[in-house]
Amino acid sequence: CSTTSIGVFAKIDNAKIKSLQQMSLESSLSYEIVESLTVEVGPRLPGSPADLKTVAWAEAKFKALNYDKIYKEPVEIPVWTRGAASAEITAPFPQPIVITALGGSVATPDEGIEAEIVRFDNIEQLQQADSKLVEGKIVFIDPITERHRTGKGYGKVVGARSKGAVESAKKGALAVVIRSIGTDSDRFAHTGMMRYSDDTIKIPAAAMSVPDANQVNAMLDRGQPVRIKMNLSPASKGVASSYNVIGEITGSTYPDEIILLGAHHDSWDEGTGALDDGAGVGIVMATGALIKKHSVQPKRTIRVVLYAAEEIGLIGGKAYAKAHEKELDKHRFALESDFGAGLIWRLDTRVNPAALEDMKNIARMLEPLGIEMGHNNAGGGPDISMLPGYGVPVINLQQDGSDYFDYHHTPNDTLDKIDPAKIAQNTTAWVTFAVMAAEVDAQLRPIPERK
Amino acid sequence: CSTTSIGVFAKIDNAKIKSLQQMSLESSLSYEIVESLTVEVGPRLPGSPADLKTVAWAEAKFKALNYDKIYKEPVEIPVWTRGAASAEITAPFPQPIVITALGGSVATPDEGIEAEIVRFDNIEQLQQADSKLVEGKIVFIDPITERHRTGKGYGKVVGARSKGAVESAKKGALAVVIRSIGTDSDRFAHTGMMRYSDDTIKIPAAAMSVPDANQVNAMLDRGQPVRIKMNLSPASKGVASSYNVIGEITGSTYPDEIILLGAHHDSWDEGTGALDDGAGVGIVMATGALIKKHSVQPKRTIRVVLYAAEEIGLIGGKAYAKAHEKELDKHRFALESDFGAGLIWRLDTRVNPAALEDMKNIARMLEPLGIEMGHNNAGGGPDISMLPGYGVPVINLQQDGSDYFDYHHTPNDTLDKIDPAKIAQNTTAWVTFAVMAAEVDAQLRPIPERK
Ligand SMILES: [Zn+2]
Ligand SMILES: [Zn+2]
Ligand SMILES: [Zn+2]
Ligand SMILES: [Zn+2]
Repeated sequence: CSTTSIGVFAKIDNAKIKSLQQMSLESSLSYEIVESLTVEVGPRLPGSPADLKTVAWAEAKFKALNYDKIYKEPVEIPVWTRGAASAEITAPFPQPIVITALGGSVATPDEGIEAEIVRFDNIEQLQQADSKLVEGKIVFIDPITERHRTGKGYGKVVGARSKGAVESAKKGALAVVIRSIGTDSDRFAHTGMMRYSDDTIKIPAAAMSVPDANQVNAMLDRGQPVRIKMNLSPASKGVASSYNVIGEITGSTYPDEIILLGAHHDSWDEGTGALDDGAGVGIVMATGALIKKHSVQPKRTIRVVLYAAEEIGLIGGKAYAKAHEKELDKHRFALESDFGAGLIWRLDTRVNPAALEDMKNIARMLEPLGIEMGHNNAGGGPDISMLPGYGVPVINLQQDGSDYFDYHHTPNDTLDKIDPAKIAQNTTAWVTFAVMAAEVDAQLRPIPERK
Repeated sequence: CSTTSIGVFAKIDNAKIKSLQQMSLESSLSYEIVESLTVEVGPRLPGSPADLKTVAWAEAKFKALNYDKIYKEPVEIPVWTRGAASAEITAPFPQPIVITALGGSVATPDEGIEAEIVRFDNIEQLQQADSKLVEGKIVFIDPITERHRTGKGYGKVVGARSKGAVESAKKGALAVVIRSIGTDSDRFAHTGMMRYSDDTIKIPAAAMSVPDANQVNAMLDRGQPVRIKMNLSPASKGVASSYNVIGEITGSTYPDEIILLGAHHDSWDEGTGALDDGAGVGIVMATGALIKKHSVQPKRTIRVVLYAAEEIGLIGGKAYAKAHEKELDKHRFALESDFGAGLIWRLDTRVNPAALEDMKNIARMLEPLGIEMGHNNAGGGPDISMLPGYGVPVINLQQDGSDYFDYHHTPNDTLDKIDPAKIAQNTTAWVTFAVMAAEVDAQLRPIPERK
């Protein structure tokens, strides 16, 4: 396979790539970047004072990492503050439970909301329910998030979080509380964005921890009505400015052609956002830096984009697509790291099938890292999810996310959950992909429709 | 080995014990008892309204389990309420941290306490420190709890919690905050009792979670002073009554001779006390119940004691020893379950060496459960720790506590942390020990001094 690759990648031969890989595996740079972000900034809710600190941190870090070009692009974001959250079961067996407000939720009245709950297995069951069952109650949506390497259990149930308030309000509920969208059994509630619609009233929305959801079920199993009281004090406070922060390693031959490496710099506020998405920030920033440090000038420009305000609705991602609309035809590849720091195990692509041989050549160099060639039906990450609509080829360096949803959007998303050896493997895969992708001359478009 | 045992235990032969064991392994009774306690009562802080609910629950449960004799004995306990706890790092990198008040702590002023911290590896280092380093600061004691099957890492460092406030106050500190005494790396602070002395002022005392302790260290490693602001609002509120609750299975031949099986019915307030000590309550209550249910009348009385207010200073244990002082010479054995629900792996004893052959006979019947014979230097559990002083032989059915201090005294001590199969193994070992110990006629005293 060595000879095959040499044919395609004339300037960066396999020996050079292997030496880059060796260096990257031995480097702790990506871990150090996450450490710096999570310690020196910590939680960084979009629109909070920490958000602009993150922007300043990112600019300074790109500079320290010796990027060729560093700039930022403004985005406007709605400001939401969490306030306090508390809840208790008031009947039949009074005791406190652990809840958190879902992102964007309105507050309860100061005195809280107290009502009987009505339980649904999932959002679909709620949608089919008779309004009479729901009216005047607190809806409890109780879906179980299955653990899976690809994280596919999350997508199946996250509708309870995003749509629960609207569907509950339609049927006259006073509030909604969901079993946390998470695979753990720790006493943490998982936050995350929810949405309202213009034609239903806005009711408070919260999540309870998995052990608390089990506790509520144990009471329901006894055949008695369960009543809950919840107090939430989040608030919406106008708009604020933030920025996508961008660093580039300039391409040698085609500087205007772009390999986009993305991650989001914001996080939820209860943890320090180490896995979500400090890890991604560390991986993509280290990728450009290690390439630069080892004097590999890529043939095309490697553009590292740290998106603002992903958590509250892909705001940075949408702003980037809009601001760069005219340049998107020069985007050769886009990929994003936003799934923690588990080992990468598969390379998925979405490129013109004519370019698949080049992709396989890259996959061969990833093989020693334990990474196999996957399908040609990649979605890209959240902030680049709109780019295939513009014809941009997207890539997934698929991580093992088996434990990602144990910590996702909880206070427990902290640095200690990152294994330095695993994030180094990630970074090495990204370095390998980025330098090799920058060399690919094949026609990458049109990309196939997503199946 | 079958014949040996038959010689000693004439009335309850090996076949009967094996059938009891089989039935007990298949029973989920101990798990159901913990479920009932943690769901129907939940957290049960000594002196809180839940404390007397627990007492009522225990009496009703003993009754439902068909115990021969059920009674309760009053204890007087100081009332302490937790209030709220919050803290933040104010410099160099402002961000919130997770803390909890240590049990018994005084409150901070309403506006909180804000000061630079001074860090010590452990209580010993603090004790040796120059007061000038400590004066006007918040002491941060930062010992790491080692994971061990026997839990021996806990005893090495728990002095930071119990003695931290006194030692800090002696040197002029404003407050003390410790790294949680725990083996986990979850964003929970571990509470637990602390003490004041009469000759030092009472300063507020808290614990921070392990990830937060790491975060503080990461800042200290940057060579900058770290400042913390903490707010605690616990309060002492006089005294209240609670009760040790006792259930007995009456002995056939020597009803006044006692095999004491103990656990404590109180818990800390942030979790539901499933492991500490719901599991113990389930194991000891199920032990008597299963023996009774299977028509094994023990030769001596099996007395199950559910102690009150263990967490705040062994109050129930001390009260029992005092109330039963004249009867303690009739206590043949005492054992306590208060270390979670991990598999039992060793039988430790403290009996007259002349009785060790009988102990070995019991151990032989425990062997199929994976339990080996241990030493003759047992301490017993916390609530029975004063009994050897009265000559009472004590036993430890030693559990695997490898993960006990992951959850201990945190909000995360909930039912889901108990493996039904493991608690059934525990119960089976207790059933086996109890029925066989009730048969032992050998002289058990005097017991050896503890090494
Ligand atoms: Zn993310
Ligand atoms: Zn997220
Ligand atoms: Zn205990
Ligand atoms: Zn305890």
